[in-house]
Amino acid sequence: MAERVVHRRGYRKGLGGEMCAEFLGTFVLILFGVGSVAVAVAGLPGSGRQTADFGPANWLIISWGWGLAVVFGVYVAGGISGAHLNPAVTLGFAVRRDFPWRKVLPYWLAQVVGAFVAAALVYACYRWAIDAAIAKAGETRETSLTTYSIFATFPAEYFGDSWWGPLLDQIVGTGMLLLLICALIDTRNTAPKANLHPYLIGLVVVAIGLTFGTNAGYAINPARDFGPRLFTFFEGWGDIALPGTFEWFSGYWWIPIVGPLIGGVVGVLVYDLLISPVIKARLSEREEGPATEEP
Amino acid sequence: MAERVVHRRGYRKGLGGEMCAEFLGTFVLILFGVGSVAVAVAGLPGSGRQTADFGPANWLIISWGWGLAVVFGVYVAGGISGAHLNPAVTLGFAVRRDFPWRKVLPYWLAQVVGAFVAAALVYACYRWAIDAAIAKAGETRETSLTTYSIFATFPAEYFGDSWWGPLLDQIVGTGMLLLLICALIDTRNTAPKANLHPYLIGLVVVAIGLTFGTNAGYAINPARDFGPRLFTFFEGWGDIALPGTFEWFSGYWWIPIVGPLIGGVVGVLVYDLLISPVIKARLSEREEGPATEEP
Amino acid sequence: MAERVVHRRGYRKGLGGEMCAEFLGTFVLILFGVGSVAVAVAGLPGSGRQTADFGPANWLIISWGWGLAVVFGVYVAGGISGAHLNPAVTLGFAVRRDFPWRKVLPYWLAQVVGAFVAAALVYACYRWAIDAAIAKAGETRETSLTTYSIFATFPAEYFGDSWWGPLLDQIVGTGMLLLLICALIDTRNTAPKANLHPYLIGLVVVAIGLTFGTNAGYAINPARDFGPRLFTFFEGWGDIALPGTFEWFSGYWWIPIVGPLIGGVVGVLVYDLLISPVIKARLSEREEGPATEEP
Amino acid sequence: MAERVVHRRGYRKGLGGEMCAEFLGTFVLILFGVGSVAVAVAGLPGSGRQTADFGPANWLIISWGWGLAVVFGVYVAGGISGAHLNPAVTLGFAVRRDFPWRKVLPYWLAQVVGAFVAAALVYACYRWAIDAAIAKAGETRETSLTTYSIFATFPAEYFGDSWWGPLLDQIVGTGMLLLLICALIDTRNTAPKANLHPYLIGLVVVAIGLTFGTNAGYAINPARDFGPRLFTFFEGWGDIALPGTFEWFSGYWWIPIVGPLIGGVVGVLVYDLLISPVIKARLSEREEGPATEEP
Repeated sequence: MAERVVHRRGYRKGLGGEMCAEFLGTFVLILFGVGSVAVAVAGLPGSGRQTADFGPANWLIISWGWGLAVVFGVYVAGGISGAHLNPAVTLGFAVRRDFPWRKVLPYWLAQVVGAFVAAALVYACYRWAIDAAIAKAGETRETSLTTYSIFATFPAEYFGDSWWGPLLDQIVGTGMLLLLICALIDTRNTAPKANLHPYLIGLVVVAIGLTFGTNAGYAINPARDFGPRLFTFFEGWGDIALPGTFEWFSGYWWIPIVGPLIGGVVGVLVYDLLISPVIKARLSEREEGPATEEP
Repeated sequence: MAERVVHRRGYRKGLGGEMCAEFLGTFVLILFGVGSVAVAVAGLPGSGRQTADFGPANWLIISWGWGLAVVFGVYVAGGISGAHLNPAVTLGFAVRRDFPWRKVLPYWLAQVVGAFVAAALVYACYRWAIDAAIAKAGETRETSLTTYSIFATFPAEYFGDSWWGPLLDQIVGTGMLLLLICALIDTRNTAPKANLHPYLIGLVVVAIGLTFGTNAGYAINPARDFGPRLFTFFEGWGDIALPGTFEWFSGYWWIPIVGPLIGGVVGVLVYDLLISPVIKARLSEREEGPATEEP
Repeated sequence: MAERVVHRRGYRKGLGGEMCAEFLGTFVLILFGVGSVAVAVAGLPGSGRQTADFGPANWLIISWGWGLAVVFGVYVAGGISGAHLNPAVTLGFAVRRDFPWRKVLPYWLAQVVGAFVAAALVYACYRWAIDAAIAKAGETRETSLTTYSIFATFPAEYFGDSWWGPLLDQIVGTGMLLLLICALIDTRNTAPKANLHPYLIGLVVVAIGLTFGTNAGYAINPARDFGPRLFTFFEGWGDIALPGTFEWFSGYWWIPIVGPLIGGVVGVLVYDLLISPVIKARLSEREEGPATEEP
Repeated sequence: MAERVVHRRGYRKGLGGEMCAEFLGTFVLILFGVGSVAVAVAGLPGSGRQTADFGPANWLIISWGWGLAVVFGVYVAGGISGAHLNPAVTLGFAVRRDFPWRKVLPYWLAQVVGAFVAAALVYACYRWAIDAAIAKAGETRETSLTTYSIFATFPAEYFGDSWWGPLLDQIVGTGMLLLLICALIDTRNTAPKANLHPYLIGLVVVAIGLTFGTNAGYAINPARDFGPRLFTFFEGWGDIALPGTFEWFSGYWWIPIVGPLIGGVVGVLVYDLLISPVIKARLSEREEGPATEEP
C-alpha cells in the first residue's frame, strides 16, 4: 500500500525522490546526533548538573554519536540523492562538482525540514529528561544553555563576544569535512571501495568532533544547526535559540550558517588546487609513459 | 561425532537448522551484551556503588559492548537464518520482506531461549561480582535495581510512572534499527559489500545506545529483554523482574515487548514509503533513459 | 643482507618460517596488549594510585588496546602461519580443523617465546613508570598487584579463593573467542572478505574485554599469560607471578593455561555442533533443489 | 581556474605533485592530531587545570584523534605520493623499499612545512582556549607545559633527565609503526583490500597511542614533532619548545627526530628479516609443489 501511494505521486521519480532521501537522511543524522547530546547532558544518571561537570567521556559519546549519525544518514540516502545531508556539501558540489544549481534550494529545504522534524522527535522522547535536568540545575528553559546545547550550538565562553573565533572554527571544520569527502569519493585517488565510503565519511565527523568540536559545537552544517535551533525557539528556549543571545554573546545564529557555507567551498577548492590536478597530470602521464606502481 | 549427531536429526536441514542459528546468534548477542553491563556495574574495581556513580565512560562500555554483541551474533547466524536475533526484526521482515509467517513463532522461540540461556551463563560467571555489589550497596536482590539492570531494562526515574515516554522511546529506537537494517541490506542502495553488513548493523546498535540508550535501557528487542528478565525472576530479583515493579513504576515488563514490535514495523514501513519506491522508480528510469552517475 | 641470512637458514621454508610468524605475531600482540595496561595503570598522569582509582575509561584503553593488538598481530602473521598467536587456537584447530598435531608444540613454543620477549621490551620502556607507580603507592614489587597486572592476570577479589569462578570465566571467554573465529573464517557462512577478518577477529577481543574482562583479566590465551608471567617472576614480582599467590589466592598460574585450552576446544565444538552441519546440509540442499536467497 | 593555475606550474606532474600531496596529507594529519590535544587539554569545559586532572578519557580523545588524523591524511595523499606523511616512513622506504633517495629530502621538507602550517592554523582556532587555560592555571606560555603539549611532545616526569628512556620509547613506537605498515601493504601477506589499508594504518596509530603514548607523547614522526615545535618556539613557548628545556629535562628536541628515524628503519628490517623472506620462500614452494590453503 505504501508503495502504491508513492508511485502515484509521480514526482518522486526525479527531484522529489531525491528530496525524500535528503529529508530522511538528514532526519537520521539529526535524530542520532542530537540524541547523543541528550544522552550526554540529560540522559545519563548524574547528568544535568552545571556545565563544568561535562567531561571527556561525555565528549566521546557525542563525537561517536554524531559520527555514526553521519554514517547511517549516508547509508540511507546514498543510493538516491548522493546523501549530502548538509547545505555546505550541496553548495560545494554545485560550485565544483557539477551538481545542478537548480537543485540546490530544494536540497537545502529538505535538509532543514528533516533536521527540524528529527529535533522534534528527539524532544518528544527526551522532554522528561530535559525537564528533570533543568529542574535539578534550578534554571528555566530561557537560561538553560546546557539543555539548549542538546539541539543547537553556541561558542565556548573563552571567545567572549568575538565572532571571528567561532566563524573561523566553522570554516576550518567544514573545510576539512569537504576536503576529505572529496578525497573519499575520488576513485582516481585511494577512495574506499565495497560501499564503505559512508563509514569513512562518518569517521571524518568523529575526527572533527574530537579535534574541532569544543570551540563552537561543530555545527559544520547549516541545516544541522538551524533546523533544531528553530525548533528550540518554538519550544521555549527563546533568545538563546534565536537570535542566539546569551550571557557572553548576542545574535549567534548566523555563524553556523555562513561559516560552513564558506568553509565547504574552501575545502573543495583546496582539494581541486592541490590534489585533483596532480592526479589528472599523473593519469595522463601513465597513458603516455611507463606506469609507476603504488602499493 | 558432533556432526553425525546433527545429521541424524534431519530436521536441521530446514527450519530446525535456522532455529539453531537463531538460538546461537541470540546467545552470542546476549552473552556479550549482558556481560558488558555486568562489567560496567559490577565487574570494574570501584563499581557496585549507587546508581549516581554510573558515568559516561561506563556508558561507552555498554554501548560498544552491545554493538559488538550484535556484530558477532550476526556473523555467527548470518549465513543460515539471516540472523534476525530479534522478534521485532522477524516481525518486520514478515510484514514487508516476504519472510514466511509460519516461521515467525519458531524464530521467536529460538531467540527467547537463546537469550535465557545466555543470561544464565553470564550469571554463572558473575554471581560473585553481583553478590559483592549488592553487599557493598547494603541491598538485597529484591531491591537492587542496579544489579537487575545487568540483565534487563527499566525506565529512567524522570519518567515517573508514565508508560508513554518509555514506550515511545522503544518505538523510536527499534524503528531506527529496522529502518537502517533495511538500508544496509538493500543492494539497490549503498549497502556495504564484502560481507561487512554485520559490522555496520552492529554499529547501528552502538549508535542507538549512545543516542537513545539512557531513557529506558534500549531493549529494542523483545527477546533481549524478556529472556534475561525471566531468568532474573527465577533467580530472586522478584517483582523488579516480573511484573517489573519498583520504586517509581508498576508492571513494566510489556513495554520492551510491545514497543519494539510496533517500532520495528514502523521502521520498515518508513523505508518502504520514502526510499524503496524511489529506488525502484530510478532503476526503471535508468533502464529507459540515460544513466546518472553516483560517486 | 637480512634476506640472505634467512634464505641460508633453509628451514624457514617450512615449520621454521611459520614459527617466525607466530613469534612475531605474538610479539606484536603482547607488546601492544601489555603496553595498553602499562598506559592505563602506570603511564597516565595521575595513575599509580590504588586499584580503586581504576575506572571505566581505563578499561576502554585496555579493551581497545588488546583488541587492536590482536588485529595487528594477525595482519603480521596471517599470510604465513594462519596467525594463531594463542595455544588455545592452535589446540582447537588441531582438534577440529585439521591443523597437524606435530606442529602444535612448535607453535606453542614460538607463541610463549614471543610473549616473553615482548613483555621484556615493554618492561624496558616502562620500568621508570613502573618504579614511580610503586613508589607512589608505597609498595614493593613483591606486593604490587597493580604493576604486576600490567603483565599478567589475576582474579577479582570478590572470587575469594574460589578457583571455579575464574576457571569458568576463562572457559567462557576463550570459548567465545574460538566460536567467533570459526564463524569469521568460515567462507560458507558470512565471513568478512577483502582480508578484513583480522580486523573483526580483533574486535572479538575488544568485545570479550568489555564483557568478560574484569573477572580475571581475560587472559583467554595461555601464552599471553604465561610468557609475561615468567618474565615478571624473574624481574622481582615473586610469588604474585609464580605460583600466583597473593592476598586472597594461592597458586593461580595454571588457571589461565587450563581454562583457555578447555574453552577453545569447547568453542570449536559448539560451532561444529550447531552451525557447521547446518551449513553443510543447506549447501547440499541447494545443489539439489531451488536456491533460497539471503540478503 | 584553480586547475589552470596548477597545470601551468608543470612541475606538479612529477616530484612537485608528490610534494603537494605530502604537504596536504601531513597538514591533515597535524590539524586533526594537534586539534585533538587542544580539545583534551584546553577545549573541554573544566579543562585547563593542572596536569594531574588529565585522565584516561582525555587519552582516548587524543588516541582516536591522532589515529583518525592518520587515516584521513593517508586517504588525501595516498593516490599520489604513497602518503608517507612522516620522515621515518620515507627513510624506511628508501632503505628497504626502493623509494628513490633523491626524493627523500623533498618529501621531508613538504612534511615539515605541512606540519608547521597546520600547527599555525590550529593555533589560530584555539588561541582563545589556550590563553584561557594558561590564565586559569596562573602560568605564562614560557612555563605552560600543558598548553605546549597541544603542539609537540615532552617526556614523562618519571624519566627524570634520562634521554635513553624516551629515545627507546620512540624507537619502539616507530618500529612498530613501520613493521605494521609493511604488513598492511604487503599484498603477499594478509593486506586489507578495497582501499581500506589507510583505515588500518590509522588504527595502528590508535594502538600506539593507547599502548606507547604516555611515556613521551608518541611523536613517532619527526615532522609531526618538529614542525609544530618550531611554531610554538616562534609563538612564545620559548625554551620549552626549543631546545626543549623544562623543569626536569634539557634539550629534548632531537629525541623525537632521531628516535623515529632509527626506529622506522629497525621496523622495516624486522619485517624483512622475519616475514618477507618466509613469504617469498613459500610463494616459490607453491609454484613448485602442492598449494597449502589458508582460511
